[in-house]
Amino acid sequence: MGSALAAALLKAGHRTTVWNRTAAKTGPLTAQGATPAGTAAEAIEASALVIVCLTTNDGVRALLEPEATALAGRTVVNLTNGTPAQARELAHWAAEHGITYIDGGIMAVPQMIATPGAYILYSGTDEEAYETHRPTLAALAETKWVGKDPGAAALYDLSLLTGMYGMVMGVAQAYALIGTGGVPARDFAPLLKDWVNAMTDGLVPGMAEALDSGQHLTDVSSLAINQAALPNFLAAFAQQGLSGDLFEPLQALLDRSVAEGYGADGLSRLATLIKKE
Amino acid sequence: MGSALAAALLKAGHRTTVWNRTAAKTGPLTAQGATPAGTAAEAIEASALVIVCLTTNDGVRALLEPEATALAGRTVVNLTNGTPAQARELAHWAAEHGITYIDGGIMAVPQMIATPGAYILYSGTDEEAYETHRPTLAALAETKWVGKDPGAAALYDLSLLTGMYGMVMGVAQAYALIGTGGVPARDFAPLLKDWVNAMTDGLVPGMAEALDSGQHLTDVSSLAINQAALPNFLAAFAQQGLSGDLFEPLQALLDRSVAEGYGADGLSRLATLIKKE
Repeated sequence: MGSALAAALLKAGHRTTVWNRTAAKTGPLTAQGATPAGTAAEAIEASALVIVCLTTNDGVRALLEPEATALAGRTVVNLTNGTPAQARELAHWAAEHGITYIDGGIMAVPQMIATPGAYILYSGTDEEAYETHRPTLAALAETKWVGKDPGAAALYDLSLLTGMYGMVMGVAQAYALIGTGGVPARDFAPLLKDWVNAMTDGLVPGMAEALDSGQHLTDVSSLAINQAALPNFLAAFAQQGLSGDLFEPLQALLDRSVAEGYGADGLSRLATLIKKE
Repeated sequence: MGSALAAALLKAGHRTTVWNRTAAKTGPLTAQGATPAGTAAEAIEASALVIVCLTTNDGVRALLEPEATALAGRTVVNLTNGTPAQARELAHWAAEHGITYIDGGIMAVPQMIATPGAYILYSGTDEEAYETHRPTLAALAETKWVGKDPGAAALYDLSLLTGMYGMVMGVAQAYALIGTGGVPARDFAPLLKDWVNAMTDGLVPGMAEALDSGQHLTDVSSLAINQAALPNFLAAFAQQGLSGDLFEPLQALLDRSVAEGYGADGLSRLATLIKKE
């Protein structure tokens, strides 16, 4: 991802200094016009804007903490995947050292960087710093500011990917199930894509309206109806030789929702019942 | 659902006889021109095509078995939700009694019957009988024939709804998570809808290609990367006071996929690992 980001900056004509723990990784970027830095400190000192993208935020802390003096007065944009709590901790540490901290969440795989459809979510206490650097950041992907809580970008990022992971579970189990009937996946794919998209188009805005208004009653697809239907699915999985592990927690959640008196509510109610016990 | 189906037949000008265990439920249909039947046998004897839609297939068996003589020589289209095994059992019973049996899966809620976008999947050993009655069935919703295995319509139906239930889990958890940051659901809804749709558009056909070819290797989003990322999500759920129950089985499946040597494969591999142990 780091290479894709640096390449996008270079392509947009931005003077870019690159550093990686494994120096050889910056070779292709140097060939594209990047200035290689011998140390992280050297890379930091080369620019007012420091973009960091590592595997974990533990790595970010380990990298940045010894460089606090070099970083003071500069803006760090951290595009590493992490949690809202990690982003807030890094922002707190940065503020203590006079460093401007902007957290970011990349909604793209490296192949999608600097292509239409890719975007990066940003948040941080200093919106002005973000506005200053936005023209540069726009070279990476469409920019979306989501607020002054440094954890907001991570919260949006994780929430969107959570939606995706649910869809992945559904689609993986769907392909496993249809496959037990010897149906080629490619014959089933257009139906599956259109059906999941149609349901997403209907449910996502409908659930938002119910959640914001607190009005979850439905005359379309109640939790009681879904609770009664799900055993058919678990039975079919078992009959067709499949595990139902991915869907048993949904049955438990539906059972609990009806037991707690929400049987006449729609699926939106589930979002209010996903609480730690 | 039964009322919606009968109303659609009446609206399309088909002579329709209706029966329900609770006679009062047929009142509005009679007002729309339906002939009420005093008994199930009377309804069966009125038409060559008998459409059945109950809550469960146990109910269908209990209803039809005493009427085998009246049903002989007629076509039963069973639109009750059920499993492929139940459909095959009903088809077997029907064949023994000279009854033509077509199983169907309705991809719509009652409000969507006879509107664009709604469709019904059909399957059965006697495709000719289906073709004979297709002009009538077309009044209910778009028709899709999925094969001569009587269980095929139920298999397709359950597979499509399985995809939807996964998406529902993802979207419910996503709304719960973004809600912990005080973000109104309506502000998040357009991002969530577009993101899940974009991922569905990319993943569903891509997974099909991998599954049919058996080539699961990826350079985009490997199981190892996803396995390493998911703990961030479970940590964030816990930090924000949410249960991670809906997603723990996905972590377990990703862990197993990597342990079994599939770390470099894409998400498509998961569909091959959802097997009963």
